[in-house]
Amino acid sequence: MTTGPFAAATAVAPTGAGTFSAEILPGWDIAGNANGGYLLSIAARALLDATGRPDPVTITGHYLAPGKPGAVEIATDVVKEGKRFATGRASLMANGRPLLTVLGTFGDLDEDHGALLVDGYPPDLPPVDECVHVAATDTFPPPFMGKVELHLHPDDVGFAEGERSGIARVRGWFQLLQGESTDTVALLCALDAFPPTIFNTNLPVAWTPTVELTCHLRTRPVPGPLRCQFTTRFVTGGFLEEDGEVWDVDGRLVAQSRQLALVPRA
Amino acid sequence: MTTGPFAAATAVAPTGAGTFSAEILPGWDIAGNANGGYLLSIAARALLDATGRPDPVTITGHYLAPGKPGAVEIATDVVKEGKRFATGRASLMANGRPLLTVLGTFGDLDEDHGALLVDGYPPDLPPVDECVHVAATDTFPPPFMGKVELHLHPDDVGFAEGERSGIARVRGWFQLLQGESTDTVALLCALDAFPPTIFNTNLPVAWTPTVELTCHLRTRPVPGPLRCQFTTRFVTGGFLEEDGEVWDVDGRLVAQSRQLALVPRA
Repeated sequence: MTTGPFAAATAVAPTGAGTFSAEILPGWDIAGNANGGYLLSIAARALLDATGRPDPVTITGHYLAPGKPGAVEIATDVVKEGKRFATGRASLMANGRPLLTVLGTFGDLDEDHGALLVDGYPPDLPPVDECVHVAATDTFPPPFMGKVELHLHPDDVGFAEGERSGIARVRGWFQLLQGESTDTVALLCALDAFPPTIFNTNLPVAWTPTVELTCHLRTRPVPGPLRCQFTTRFVTGGFLEEDGEVWDVDGRLVAQSRQLALVPRA
Repeated sequence: MTTGPFAAATAVAPTGAGTFSAEILPGWDIAGNANGGYLLSIAARALLDATGRPDPVTITGHYLAPGKPGAVEIATDVVKEGKRFATGRASLMANGRPLLTVLGTFGDLDEDHGALLVDGYPPDLPPVDECVHVAATDTFPPPFMGKVELHLHPDDVGFAEGERSGIARVRGWFQLLQGESTDTVALLCALDAFPPTIFNTNLPVAWTPTVELTCHLRTRPVPGPLRCQFTTRFVTGGFLEEDGEVWDVDGRLVAQSRQLALVPRA
Protein backbone atom coordinates (compact mmCIF):
# COMPACT_ATOMS: atom_id res chain seq x y z
CA MET A 1 0.00 0.00 0.00
CA THR A 2 1.12 3.51 -0.78
CA THR A 3 1.55 6.27 1.77
CA GLY A 4 0.52 9.88 1.49
CA PRO A 5 -2.49 12.09 2.03
CA PHE A 6 -4.81 10.00 -0.18
CA ALA A 7 -3.81 6.75 1.52
CA ALA A 8 -4.37 8.42 4.90
CA ALA A 9 -7.74 9.85 3.86
CA THR A 10 -8.96 6.44 2.69
CA ALA A 11 -7.49 4.30 5.48
CA VAL A 12 -9.69 1.72 7.15
CA ALA A 13 -9.21 -0.16 10.40
CA PRO A 14 -10.69 -3.63 10.94
CA THR A 15 -13.11 -3.82 13.85
CA GLY A 16 -13.93 -7.53 13.59
CA ALA A 17 -16.42 -9.74 11.78
CA GLY A 18 -15.76 -8.11 8.42
CA THR A 19 -16.45 -4.58 9.60
CA PHE A 20 -14.11 -1.62 9.38
CA SER A 21 -14.01 1.90 10.73
CA ALA A 22 -12.92 4.89 8.68
CA GLU A 23 -13.39 8.60 8.57
CA ILE A 24 -14.67 10.92 5.90
CA LEU A 25 -12.19 13.76 6.21
CA PRO A 26 -13.18 17.38 5.74
CA GLY A 27 -12.21 19.00 2.47
CA TRP A 28 -12.97 16.04 0.20
CA ASP A 29 -16.37 17.50 -0.62
CA ILE A 30 -18.30 19.16 -3.38
CA ALA A 31 -20.84 21.61 -1.94
CA GLY A 32 -20.58 19.87 1.41
CA ASN A 33 -20.96 16.31 0.14
CA ALA A 34 -17.99 13.96 -0.06
CA ASN A 35 -16.80 13.15 -3.57
CA GLY A 36 -18.18 9.84 -4.82
CA GLY A 37 -14.87 8.43 -5.97
CA TYR A 38 -13.38 9.21 -2.58
CA LEU A 39 -16.17 7.30 -0.80
CA LEU A 40 -15.78 4.39 -3.22
CA SER A 41 -12.05 4.34 -2.47
CA ILE A 42 -12.72 3.95 1.26
CA ALA A 43 -15.10 1.06 0.62
CA ALA A 44 -12.56 -0.49 -1.77
CA ARG A 45 -9.84 -0.41 0.91
CA ALA A 46 -12.16 -2.35 3.23
CA LEU A 47 -12.93 -4.92 0.54
CA LEU A 48 -9.26 -5.35 -0.37
CA ASP A 49 -8.57 -6.13 3.28
CA ALA A 50 -11.59 -8.45 3.53
CA THR A 51 -10.70 -10.37 0.37
CA GLY A 52 -6.93 -10.28 0.86
CA ARG A 53 -6.39 -9.19 -2.75
CA PRO A 54 -4.25 -6.23 -3.81
CA ASP A 55 -6.37 -4.64 -6.56
CA PRO A 56 -9.97 -3.90 -7.51
CA VAL A 57 -10.72 -5.41 -10.93
CA THR A 58 -14.33 -4.29 -11.34
CA ILE A 59 -16.20 -2.36 -8.70
CA THR A 60 -19.65 -0.80 -8.67
CA GLY A 61 -21.02 1.68 -6.17
CA HIS A 62 -24.62 2.83 -5.78
CA TYR A 63 -24.90 6.19 -4.02
CA LEU A 64 -27.67 6.34 -1.47
CA ALA A 65 -27.11 9.47 0.63
CA PRO A 66 -24.58 12.32 0.80
CA GLY A 67 -21.43 11.74 2.85
CA LYS A 68 -20.47 14.31 5.49
CA PRO A 69 -17.19 14.52 7.41
CA GLY A 70 -17.04 12.16 10.36
CA ALA A 71 -16.81 8.52 11.33
CA VAL A 72 -18.13 5.83 9.03
CA GLU A 73 -18.41 2.08 9.34
CA ILE A 74 -17.96 -0.34 6.44
CA ALA A 75 -19.62 -3.74 6.67
CA THR A 76 -18.22 -6.25 4.19
CA ASP A 77 -19.04 -9.77 3.20
CA VAL A 78 -17.02 -11.92 0.86
CA VAL A 79 -19.34 -13.71 -1.55
CA LYS A 80 -16.77 -15.86 -3.31
CA GLU A 81 -13.10 -16.64 -2.89
CA GLY A 82 -11.74 -18.00 -6.15
CA LYS A 83 -8.23 -18.74 -7.30
CA ARG A 84 -7.87 -15.72 -9.55
CA PHE A 85 -10.54 -13.42 -8.12
CA ALA A 86 -12.59 -12.80 -5.00
CA THR A 87 -15.96 -11.06 -4.96
CA GLY A 88 -17.31 -9.04 -2.09
CA ARG A 89 -19.97 -6.58 -1.06
CA ALA A 90 -19.71 -3.57 1.20
CA SER A 91 -22.02 -1.08 2.80
CA LEU A 92 -20.56 2.23 3.95
CA MET A 93 -22.64 3.69 6.76
CA ALA A 94 -22.70 6.82 8.88
CA ASN A 95 -24.62 6.58 12.15
CA GLY A 96 -26.12 3.31 10.91
CA ARG A 97 -27.44 4.91 7.73
CA PRO A 98 -26.11 3.54 4.41
CA LEU A 99 -24.42 6.12 2.19
CA LEU A 100 -22.99 3.80 -0.43
CA THR A 101 -23.38 0.13 -1.28
CA VAL A 102 -20.68 -1.60 -3.26
CA LEU A 103 -20.13 -4.81 -5.19
CA GLY A 104 -16.70 -5.67 -6.48
CA THR A 105 -14.37 -8.34 -7.77
CA PHE A 106 -10.76 -8.17 -6.68
CA GLY A 107 -7.53 -9.73 -7.86
CA ASP A 108 -3.89 -9.11 -8.60
CA LEU A 109 -3.08 -6.76 -11.47
CA ASP A 110 0.67 -6.94 -10.96
CA GLU A 111 1.33 -8.87 -14.14
CA ASP A 112 0.62 -6.92 -17.33
CA HIS A 113 -0.89 -9.33 -19.85
CA GLY A 114 -0.25 -6.87 -22.68
CA ALA A 115 -2.50 -5.47 -25.37
CA LEU A 116 -4.26 -7.50 -28.08
CA LEU A 117 -6.59 -4.78 -29.35
CA VAL A 118 -6.41 -1.04 -28.67
CA ASP A 119 -8.98 0.96 -30.62
CA GLY A 120 -8.38 4.35 -29.06
CA TYR A 121 -5.72 6.77 -27.95
CA PRO A 122 -4.76 8.53 -24.76
CA PRO A 123 -6.32 11.99 -24.81
CA ASP A 124 -4.13 14.49 -26.58
CA LEU A 125 -3.16 16.85 -23.76
CA PRO A 126 -0.64 19.66 -23.64
CA PRO A 127 2.06 19.16 -20.98
CA VAL A 128 0.83 19.47 -17.40
CA ASP A 129 2.17 23.01 -16.96
CA GLU A 130 0.40 24.17 -20.13
CA CYS A 131 -2.93 22.87 -18.89
CA VAL A 132 -5.20 24.76 -16.50
CA HIS A 133 -4.83 23.93 -12.83
CA VAL A 134 -8.12 23.70 -10.97
CA ALA A 135 -7.70 25.50 -7.66
CA ALA A 136 -10.03 24.78 -4.78
CA THR A 137 -12.29 27.42 -3.27
CA ASP A 138 -14.92 27.21 -0.55
CA THR A 139 -17.63 27.12 -3.23
CA PHE A 140 -16.82 26.63 -6.93
CA PRO A 141 -14.42 25.04 -7.79
CA PRO A 142 -15.18 22.92 -4.75
CA PRO A 143 -12.92 22.11 -1.77
CA PHE A 144 -12.29 18.62 -3.19
CA MET A 145 -10.07 20.19 -5.86
CA GLY A 146 -7.60 20.99 -3.08
CA LYS A 147 -7.18 17.25 -2.36
CA VAL A 148 -6.21 16.17 -5.87
CA GLU A 149 -4.25 17.92 -8.57
CA LEU A 150 -6.22 18.39 -11.77
CA HIS A 151 -4.90 20.16 -14.82
CA LEU A 152 -7.57 20.50 -17.49
CA HIS A 153 -7.14 20.74 -21.24
CA PRO A 154 -7.33 24.45 -22.10
CA ASP A 155 -10.08 23.72 -24.64
CA ASP A 156 -12.26 22.12 -21.95
CA VAL A 157 -12.30 24.82 -19.28
CA GLY A 158 -14.25 27.51 -21.12
CA PHE A 159 -17.29 26.72 -19.00
CA ALA A 160 -15.65 28.58 -16.12
CA GLU A 161 -16.03 31.79 -18.15
CA GLY A 162 -19.29 30.81 -19.79
CA GLU A 163 -17.59 29.81 -23.04
CA ARG A 164 -18.39 26.19 -23.47
CA SER A 165 -16.80 23.94 -26.05
CA GLY A 166 -20.18 22.47 -26.99
CA ILE A 167 -18.68 19.00 -26.68
CA ALA A 168 -19.71 16.84 -23.71
CA ARG A 169 -16.13 16.06 -22.85
CA VAL A 170 -13.59 16.92 -20.17
CA ARG A 171 -9.91 16.00 -20.49
CA GLY A 172 -7.05 16.54 -18.13
CA TRP A 173 -4.21 15.30 -16.01
CA PHE A 174 -4.78 13.70 -12.59
CA GLN A 175 -2.20 13.48 -9.84
CA LEU A 176 -2.28 12.99 -6.12
CA LEU A 177 -0.71 15.62 -3.90
CA GLN A 178 2.83 15.58 -2.51
CA GLY A 179 3.96 13.15 -5.20
CA GLU A 180 1.93 10.31 -3.71
CA SER A 181 1.90 7.45 -6.18
CA THR A 182 -1.41 6.41 -7.71
CA ASP A 183 -2.35 2.87 -6.75
CA THR A 184 -5.36 1.12 -8.24
CA VAL A 185 -7.59 2.49 -5.46
CA ALA A 186 -6.56 6.03 -6.33
CA LEU A 187 -7.70 5.28 -9.89
CA LEU A 188 -11.23 5.00 -8.48
CA CYS A 189 -10.81 8.54 -7.19
CA ALA A 190 -9.44 9.76 -10.53
CA LEU A 191 -12.46 8.27 -12.30
CA ASP A 192 -14.84 10.57 -10.41
CA ALA A 193 -12.61 13.60 -9.87
CA PHE A 194 -13.35 15.74 -12.90
CA PRO A 195 -16.04 18.38 -13.51
CA PRO A 196 -19.16 17.00 -15.22
CA THR A 197 -18.96 16.63 -18.97
CA ILE A 198 -22.19 18.53 -19.45
CA PHE A 199 -20.52 21.70 -18.18
CA ASN A 200 -19.25 21.95 -21.74
CA THR A 201 -22.68 21.56 -23.35
CA ASN A 202 -25.63 23.87 -23.54
CA LEU A 203 -27.38 22.06 -20.70
CA PRO A 204 -27.64 23.81 -17.32
CA VAL A 205 -24.30 23.86 -15.48
CA ALA A 206 -25.14 21.93 -12.36
CA TRP A 207 -23.69 18.96 -10.54
CA THR A 208 -24.99 15.67 -11.81
CA PRO A 209 -25.74 13.36 -8.88
CA THR A 210 -24.24 9.92 -9.42
CA VAL A 211 -26.68 7.05 -9.12
CA GLU A 212 -24.09 4.40 -9.89
CA LEU A 213 -20.41 4.26 -10.80
CA THR A 214 -18.64 1.21 -12.21
CA CYS A 215 -14.86 1.13 -12.62
CA HIS A 216 -12.81 -1.46 -14.48
CA LEU A 217 -9.11 -1.64 -13.72
CA ARG A 218 -6.82 -3.18 -16.33
CA THR A 219 -3.35 -2.85 -14.89
CA ARG A 220 -1.40 -0.83 -12.34
CA PRO A 221 -0.27 2.57 -13.62
CA VAL A 222 3.43 3.39 -13.77
CA PRO A 223 4.37 6.46 -11.70
CA GLY A 224 3.52 9.80 -13.24
CA PRO A 225 0.55 11.99 -14.04
CA LEU A 226 -2.47 10.23 -15.54
CA ARG A 227 -4.20 11.27 -18.75
CA CYS A 228 -7.95 11.22 -18.22
CA GLN A 229 -10.91 11.68 -20.51
CA PHE A 230 -14.62 11.79 -19.75
CA THR A 231 -17.35 11.83 -22.36
CA THR A 232 -21.13 11.72 -22.49
CA ARG A 233 -23.09 10.63 -25.54
CA PHE A 234 -26.64 10.34 -24.27
CA VAL A 235 -28.62 12.64 -22.04
CA THR A 236 -32.01 10.97 -22.26
CA GLY A 237 -34.81 9.73 -20.04
CA GLY A 238 -33.67 11.99 -17.21
CA PHE A 239 -30.29 10.25 -17.07
CA LEU A 240 -26.85 10.60 -18.55
CA GLU A 241 -23.90 8.28 -18.73
CA GLU A 242 -20.38 9.49 -18.25
CA ASP A 243 -17.61 7.28 -19.63
CA GLY A 244 -14.11 7.66 -18.26
CA GLU A 245 -10.72 6.49 -19.42
CA VAL A 246 -7.44 6.75 -17.56
CA TRP A 247 -4.11 6.23 -19.31
CA ASP A 248 -0.68 6.15 -17.71
CA VAL A 249 2.40 7.97 -18.99
CA ASP A 250 3.50 4.81 -20.77
CA GLY A 251 0.38 5.19 -22.94
CA ARG A 252 -1.45 2.21 -21.48
CA LEU A 253 -5.15 2.22 -20.70
CA VAL A 254 -5.21 1.52 -16.96
CA ALA A 255 -8.89 2.05 -16.16
CA GLN A 256 -12.31 2.61 -17.63
CA SER A 257 -15.48 3.76 -15.97
CA ARG A 258 -19.09 4.43 -16.67
CA GLN A 259 -21.43 6.20 -14.35
CA LEU A 260 -25.15 6.77 -14.50
CA ALA A 261 -26.06 10.21 -13.24
CA LEU A 262 -29.19 12.26 -12.95
CA VAL A 263 -29.85 15.19 -15.22
CA PRO A 264 -30.22 18.22 -12.99
CA ARG A 265 -33.79 19.46 -13.03
CA ALA A 266 -33.91 22.86 -14.71
CA MET B 1 -45.67 -7.91 -16.25
CA THR B 2 -45.61 -9.44 -19.68
CA THR B 3 -46.53 -13.03 -20.44
CA GLY B 4 -44.78 -15.43 -22.77
CA PRO B 5 -41.91 -17.88 -22.78
CA PHE B 6 -39.35 -15.37 -21.49
CA ALA B 7 -41.60 -14.23 -18.65
CA ALA B 8 -42.21 -17.88 -17.77
CA ALA B 9 -38.52 -18.75 -17.93
CA THR B 10 -37.61 -15.88 -15.59
CA ALA B 11 -40.52 -16.17 -13.15
CA VAL B 12 -39.79 -16.09 -9.45
CA ALA B 13 -41.99 -17.07 -6.51
CA PRO B 14 -41.59 -15.46 -3.08
CA THR B 15 -40.73 -17.89 -0.33
CA GLY B 16 -40.63 -15.42 2.56
CA ALA B 17 -38.10 -13.11 4.22
CA GLY B 18 -36.94 -11.66 0.91
CA THR B 19 -36.13 -15.00 -0.67
CA PHE B 20 -37.51 -16.35 -3.94
CA SER B 21 -37.48 -19.64 -5.76
CA ALA B 22 -36.98 -19.95 -9.50
CA GLU B 23 -35.78 -22.43 -12.03
CA ILE B 24 -33.04 -22.32 -14.62
CA LEU B 25 -34.82 -23.92 -17.55
CA PRO B 26 -33.02 -26.21 -19.97
CA GLY B 27 -32.17 -24.74 -23.36
CA TRP B 28 -31.11 -21.29 -22.15
CA ASP B 29 -27.47 -22.35 -22.22
CA ILE B 30 -24.27 -21.85 -24.11
CA ALA B 31 -22.17 -25.02 -23.99
CA GLY B 32 -24.17 -26.22 -21.00
CA ASN B 33 -23.98 -22.99 -18.97
CA ALA B 34 -26.99 -20.71 -18.65
CA ASN B 35 -26.69 -17.41 -20.51
CA GLY B 36 -25.60 -14.56 -18.22
CA GLY B 37 -28.32 -12.14 -19.26
CA TYR B 38 -30.92 -14.82 -18.59
CA LEU B 39 -29.60 -15.38 -15.05
CA LEU B 40 -29.48 -11.62 -14.46
CA SER B 41 -33.11 -11.39 -15.58
CA ILE B 42 -34.19 -13.95 -12.98
CA ALA B 43 -32.38 -12.03 -10.23
CA ALA B 44 -33.91 -8.77 -11.51
CA ARG B 45 -37.43 -10.22 -11.25
CA ALA B 46 -36.77 -11.06 -7.61
CA LEU B 47 -35.44 -7.57 -6.90
CA LEU B 48 -38.38 -5.89 -8.65
CA ASP B 49 -40.70 -7.87 -6.39
CA ALA B 50 -38.61 -7.10 -3.30
CA THR B 51 -38.43 -3.37 -4.03
CA GLY B 52 -41.95 -3.03 -5.44
CA ARG B 53 -40.66 -1.06 -8.42
CA PRO B 54 -41.50 -1.84 -12.05
CA ASP B 55 -38.14 -1.33 -13.78
CA PRO B 56 -34.42 -1.86 -13.30
CA VAL B 57 -32.59 1.45 -13.77
CA THR B 58 -29.02 0.28 -13.27
CA ILE B 59 -28.11 -3.27 -12.41
CA THR B 60 -24.77 -5.01 -12.03
CA GLY B 61 -24.14 -8.74 -11.87
CA HIS B 62 -20.91 -10.49 -10.96
CA TYR B 63 -20.73 -14.05 -12.28
CA LEU B 64 -19.35 -16.54 -9.81
CA ALA B 65 -20.12 -20.01 -11.16
CA PRO B 66 -21.86 -21.53 -14.19
CA GLY B 67 -25.63 -22.01 -13.99
CA LYS B 68 -27.08 -25.43 -14.80
CA PRO B 69 -30.76 -26.30 -15.30
CA GLY B 70 -32.62 -26.81 -12.07
CA ALA B 71 -33.96 -25.04 -9.01
CA VAL B 72 -32.34 -21.85 -7.75
CA GLU B 73 -32.96 -19.64 -4.78
CA ILE B 74 -32.62 -15.85 -4.82
CA ALA B 75 -31.90 -14.08 -1.53
CA THR B 76 -32.59 -10.36 -1.68
CA ASP B 77 -32.14 -7.45 0.66
CA VAL B 78 -33.36 -3.94 0.06
CA VAL B 79 -30.64 -1.48 1.02
CA LYS B 80 -32.59 1.72 0.50
CA GLU B 81 -36.16 2.67 -0.27
CA GLY B 82 -36.25 6.19 -1.67
CA LYS B 83 -38.99 8.20 -3.27
CA ARG B 84 -37.75 7.89 -6.83
CA PHE B 85 -35.54 4.79 -6.54
CA ALA B 86 -34.95 1.74 -4.42
CA THR B 87 -31.64 -0.12 -4.21
CA GLY B 88 -31.28 -3.80 -3.50
CA ARG B 89 -28.88 -6.71 -3.58
CA ALA B 90 -29.48 -10.28 -4.62
CA SER B 91 -27.63 -13.54 -4.55
CA LEU B 92 -28.74 -16.28 -6.92
CA MET B 93 -27.81 -19.68 -5.54
CA ALA B 94 -28.05 -23.31 -6.62
CA ASN B 95 -27.81 -25.88 -3.83
CA GLY B 96 -26.61 -23.11 -1.54
CA ARG B 97 -23.76 -22.15 -3.85
CA PRO B 98 -23.79 -18.59 -5.24
CA LEU B 99 -23.81 -18.37 -9.04
CA LEU B 100 -24.43 -14.67 -9.42
CA THR B 101 -24.43 -11.70 -7.08
CA VAL B 102 -26.33 -8.57 -8.06
CA LEU B 103 -26.62 -4.93 -7.03
CA GLY B 104 -29.28 -2.76 -8.59
CA THR B 105 -31.31 0.41 -8.38
CA PHE B 106 -34.93 0.23 -9.44
CA GLY B 107 -37.59 2.75 -10.34
CA ASP B 108 -40.36 3.59 -12.74
CA LEU B 109 -39.38 4.25 -16.37
CA ASP B 110 -42.94 4.75 -17.55
CA GLU B 111 -42.56 8.45 -18.22
CA ASP B 112 -40.17 9.29 -21.04
CA HIS B 113 -38.24 12.41 -20.07
CA GLY B 114 -37.12 12.94 -23.64
CA ALA B 115 -33.70 13.49 -25.16
CA LEU B 116 -31.41 16.45 -24.44
CA LEU B 117 -28.27 15.09 -26.10
CA VAL B 118 -27.96 12.15 -28.49
CA ASP B 119 -24.47 11.72 -29.90
CA GLY B 120 -25.01 8.46 -31.75
CA TYR B 121 -27.35 6.58 -34.01
CA PRO B 122 -29.21 3.31 -33.93
CA PRO B 123 -27.12 0.73 -35.77
CA ASP B 124 -27.79 0.77 -39.48
CA LEU B 125 -29.39 -2.63 -40.05
CA PRO B 126 -31.11 -4.09 -43.09
CA PRO B 127 -34.72 -5.13 -42.41
CA VAL B 128 -35.10 -8.16 -40.15
CA ASP B 129 -35.78 -10.56 -43.03
CA GLU B 130 -32.63 -9.41 -44.84
CA CYS B 131 -30.48 -10.10 -41.80
CA VAL B 132 -29.12 -13.53 -40.90
CA HIS B 133 -31.19 -15.54 -38.44
CA VAL B 134 -29.10 -17.38 -35.85
CA ALA B 135 -30.54 -20.87 -35.52
CA ALA B 136 -29.86 -22.92 -32.43
CA THR B 137 -27.97 -26.22 -32.53
CA ASP B 138 -26.86 -28.57 -29.79
CA THR B 139 -23.36 -27.11 -30.05
CA PHE B 140 -22.61 -23.97 -32.07
CA PRO B 141 -24.65 -21.79 -32.39
CA PRO B 142 -25.69 -22.73 -28.86
CA PRO B 143 -29.11 -23.91 -27.62
CA PHE B 144 -29.77 -20.42 -26.15
CA MET B 145 -30.27 -19.11 -29.69
CA GLY B 146 -33.48 -21.13 -29.80
CA LYS B 147 -34.91 -19.10 -26.91
CA VAL B 148 -34.46 -15.67 -28.45
CA GLU B 149 -34.70 -14.49 -32.02
CA LEU B 150 -31.50 -12.89 -33.28
CA HIS B 151 -31.02 -11.61 -36.79
CA LEU B 152 -27.46 -10.44 -37.36
CA HIS B 153 -26.19 -7.82 -39.76
CA PRO B 154 -24.91 -9.71 -42.84
CA ASP B 155 -21.54 -7.94 -42.51
CA ASP B 156 -21.09 -9.25 -38.97
CA VAL B 157 -21.67 -12.98 -39.44
CA GLY B 158 -18.64 -13.83 -41.56
CA PHE B 159 -17.01 -15.43 -38.52
CA ALA B 160 -19.31 -18.43 -38.99
CA GLU B 161 -17.49 -19.18 -42.26
CA GLY B 162 -14.09 -17.98 -41.05
CA GLU B 163 -14.42 -14.64 -42.84
CA ARG B 164 -14.23 -12.08 -40.13
CA SER B 165 -14.98 -8.41 -40.59
CA GLY B 166 -11.87 -7.43 -38.63
CA ILE B 167 -14.02 -5.04 -36.58
CA ALA B 168 -14.79 -5.95 -32.96
CA ARG B 169 -18.49 -5.33 -33.45
CA VAL B 170 -21.70 -7.33 -33.70
CA ARG B 171 -24.99 -5.76 -34.78
CA GLY B 172 -28.41 -7.26 -35.10
CA TRP B 173 -32.09 -7.39 -34.24
CA PHE B 174 -33.34 -8.89 -30.98
CA GLN B 175 -36.84 -10.21 -30.40
CA LEU B 176 -38.45 -12.58 -27.97
CA LEU B 177 -40.27 -15.62 -29.33
CA GLN B 178 -43.99 -15.87 -30.03
CA GLY B 179 -44.35 -12.09 -30.26
CA GLU B 180 -43.73 -11.68 -26.52
CA SER B 181 -43.20 -8.01 -25.81
CA THR B 182 -39.85 -6.86 -24.48
CA ASP B 183 -40.13 -5.39 -21.01
CA THR B 184 -37.18 -3.75 -19.29
CA VAL B 185 -36.13 -7.11 -17.80
CA ALA B 186 -35.97 -8.64 -21.26
CA LEU B 187 -33.59 -5.80 -22.19
CA LEU B 188 -31.14 -7.34 -19.71
CA CYS B 189 -31.36 -10.54 -21.72
CA ALA B 190 -30.90 -8.67 -25.02
CA LEU B 191 -27.77 -7.01 -23.63
CA ASP B 192 -26.02 -10.37 -23.24
CA ALA B 193 -27.63 -12.34 -26.08
CA PHE B 194 -25.25 -11.72 -28.96
CA PRO B 195 -22.10 -13.59 -30.04
CA PRO B 196 -18.90 -12.06 -28.65
CA THR B 197 -17.55 -9.07 -30.54
CA ILE B 198 -14.11 -10.64 -30.79
CA PHE B 199 -15.50 -13.33 -33.09
CA ASN B 200 -15.05 -10.68 -35.75
CA THR B 201 -11.42 -9.95 -34.89
CA ASN B 202 -8.27 -11.94 -35.39
CA LEU B 203 -8.30 -13.12 -31.79
CA PRO B 204 -9.18 -16.77 -31.10
CA VAL B 205 -12.89 -17.48 -31.55
CA ALA B 206 -13.86 -18.60 -28.08
CA TRP B 207 -16.50 -17.63 -25.56
CA THR B 208 -15.46 -14.79 -23.33
CA PRO B 209 -16.50 -15.50 -19.74
CA THR B 210 -18.27 -12.53 -18.20
CA VAL B 211 -16.82 -11.30 -14.94
CA GLU B 212 -19.31 -8.47 -14.56
CA LEU B 213 -22.19 -7.01 -16.52
CA THR B 214 -23.76 -3.61 -15.87
CA CYS B 215 -26.93 -2.51 -17.64
CA HIS B 216 -28.45 0.96 -17.67
CA LEU B 217 -32.08 1.28 -18.71
CA ARG B 218 -33.29 4.63 -20.00
CA THR B 219 -36.91 4.07 -20.92
CA ARG B 220 -39.31 1.26 -21.82
CA PRO B 221 -39.10 0.16 -25.45
CA VAL B 222 -42.12 0.44 -27.70
CA PRO B 223 -43.23 -2.91 -29.17
CA GLY B 224 -41.17 -4.16 -32.08
CA PRO B 225 -37.77 -5.65 -32.80
CA LEU B 226 -34.82 -4.00 -31.09
CA ARG B 227 -31.72 -2.73 -32.85
CA CYS B 228 -28.63 -3.83 -30.93
CA GLN B 229 -24.95 -3.07 -31.26
CA PHE B 230 -21.99 -4.43 -29.35
CA THR B 231 -18.45 -3.12 -29.63
CA THR B 232 -15.08 -3.70 -28.00
CA ARG B 233 -12.26 -1.18 -28.04
CA PHE B 234 -9.74 -2.59 -25.61
CA VAL B 235 -8.48 -6.14 -25.20
CA THR B 236 -5.72 -5.53 -22.69
CA GLY B 237 -4.44 -6.86 -19.38
CA GLY B 238 -6.22 -10.18 -19.94
CA PHE B 239 -9.61 -8.44 -20.05
CA LEU B 240 -11.94 -6.94 -22.59
CA GLU B 241 -14.93 -4.67 -22.28
CA GLU B 242 -18.01 -5.13 -24.40
CA ASP B 243 -20.29 -2.12 -24.74
CA GLY B 244 -23.89 -2.66 -25.76
CA GLU B 245 -26.62 -0.36 -26.99
CA VAL B 246 -30.25 -1.22 -27.57
CA TRP B 247 -32.55 1.04 -29.57
CA ASP B 248 -36.27 0.62 -30.08
CA VAL B 249 -38.09 0.95 -33.40
CA ASP B 250 -38.91 4.56 -32.58
CA GLY B 251 -35.16 5.25 -32.73
CA ARG B 252 -34.77 5.81 -29.00
CA LEU B 253 -31.82 4.49 -27.00
CA VAL B 254 -33.51 2.28 -24.41
CA ALA B 255 -30.50 0.61 -22.79
CA GLN B 256 -26.73 0.62 -22.54
CA SER B 257 -24.43 -1.98 -21.11
CA ARG B 258 -20.81 -2.64 -20.43
CA GLN B 259 -19.38 -5.95 -19.43
CA LEU B 260 -15.92 -6.95 -18.34
CA ALA B 261 -14.98 -10.33 -19.73
CA LEU B 262 -11.93 -12.52 -19.71
CA VAL B 263 -9.82 -12.97 -22.79
CA PRO B 264 -9.84 -16.68 -23.58
CA ARG B 265 -6.44 -18.20 -22.99
CA ALA B 266 -4.97 -19.31 -26.31
